[in-house]
Amino acid sequence: MFKRKIKLTIAYDGTDYHGWQIQPGIRTVQETLCQAATSLVGSQVHVHGASRTDAGVHAKGQSGLIEVATPIPTKNFPRALTDRLPSDIAVVDACDVDPSFDLIRDVTRKRYRYTLCVTKPRPVMNIRYCWHVPGDLQVPAMQAAAQALVGTHDFKSFASAADKRQSSIRTVFRCDVTERHDTPHHWIDIEVEGNGFLYNMVRNIVGTLVDIGRGRWNPDQMAAIRDAADRTAAGQLAPASGLCLEWIRY
Amino acid sequence: MFKRKIKLTIAYDGTDYHGWQIQPGIRTVQETLCQAATSLVGSQVHVHGASRTDAGVHAKGQSGLIEVATPIPTKNFPRALTDRLPSDIAVVDACDVDPSFDLIRDVTRKRYRYTLCVTKPRPVMNIRYCWHVPGDLQVPAMQAAAQALVGTHDFKSFASAADKRQSSIRTVFRCDVTERHDTPHHWIDIEVEGNGFLYNMVRNIVGTLVDIGRGRWNPDQMAAIRDAADRTAAGQLAPASGLCLEWIRY
Repeated sequence: MFKRKIKLTIAYDGTDYHGWQIQPGIRTVQETLCQAATSLVGSQVHVHGASRTDAGVHAKGQSGLIEVATPIPTKNFPRALTDRLPSDIAVVDACDVDPSFDLIRDVTRKRYRYTLCVTKPRPVMNIRYCWHVPGDLQVPAMQAAAQALVGTHDFKSFASAADKRQSSIRTVFRCDVTERHDTPHHWIDIEVEGNGFLYNMVRNIVGTLVDIGRGRWNPDQMAAIRDAADRTAAGQLAPASGLCLEWIRY
Repeated sequence: MFKRKIKLTIAYDGTDYHGWQIQPGIRTVQETLCQAATSLVGSQVHVHGASRTDAGVHAKGQSGLIEVATPIPTKNFPRALTDRLPSDIAVVDACDVDPSFDLIRDVTRKRYRYTLCVTKPRPVMNIRYCWHVPGDLQVPAMQAAAQALVGTHDFKSFASAADKRQSSIRTVFRCDVTERHDTPHHWIDIEVEGNGFLYNMVRNIVGTLVDIGRGRWNPDQMAAIRDAADRTAAGQLAPASGLCLEWIRY
């Protein structure tokens, strides 16, 4: 039987995992998926991922890729894999892809969403999925500053030092800050779409936007922070819990 | 200093607790609150609760009562207690109440909400807060059956055997079944308001409504199930995860 390539769409609550990527001796999303796929197919299967999400980061639409030689129809993979996974991971879709398909290079666009809760009472039923920053944030200032990130720029100011990739130039298609009320809580959602992201880029952008919302900087300083090409010019790193990889397009 | 009575409004994610009520050697919401209140006030404080929610059941508006002699202003209690609590419990409000106030007898109305997810993919970021029942449910049948529960009735058919209270007559003011779409998921919310609830009553009602939604019974059989005054006449017990105590009115 020929091996075929299957692209998986994967959702997870990252709270109880040390991130996506396999690391010896600790629990990761990738390793948990490899075990499920190996158990289903009956031979060793490796699950490649499009984004190495960090510890505590969530996904509604991570992309995974497996190569398998099995009579199991592709359409049965989501249910069969999900049945073999813990309750905080699910495979929501599966489709056959061309042998030439490249899970990382063929990405055209990704969307991340970051959720802030700004009201005083702790949002106990969403605390795993937000950053709780009680207090007043100037949303119009955050919205104005976010627009300075749209376009093709060097995003080095928003890349944590651990990033070893060569070019730090990326294109951000959208960076929208919106408010949402859900009594008794008041939320701010920050959606960022781009053709790729540097290490910790969205969390560094969000931390900087929160600093701007608190008045540490004026929104028109965002362009200078971006152009400094220096991580120390930007704001704090927002915690992982508020971040979710919404989808990846090819 | 005179002791004063303070009513607390408490929210929690019940997933990681063995229910509300203190039991030796296991982690409960009540015990965790007692420790926080004792630490804040500096002397032994007991936190009484209006509803003994079961293991895994959540609350947005549980009522608690403490009696304290302390110079700490009542308005400072929510923040000060929440700071001493784990991230899955919060005290969202505090107010002084009359010495004659009775936390259990003075209740006039409670609302519970039960959340079902009926779409196939597992809702990983809501799995702690719903019952995942993938498949078609006949919502109009559930809505019609729910109306048979409104009014003053003997709800013995929906009380688990463990209930030792004498009267099983209660008044249900509302029992509404509504649908909600939040791509890719489809949710059904069941809201029940009543002047009081028997042990497991909402979960037994929900289990029965799901059986009706699946066609096990016609909606017009709900009145007969109710009037049987026999637990075995009703449907399955819905799991705790989907249940949330929304509020309690006095």
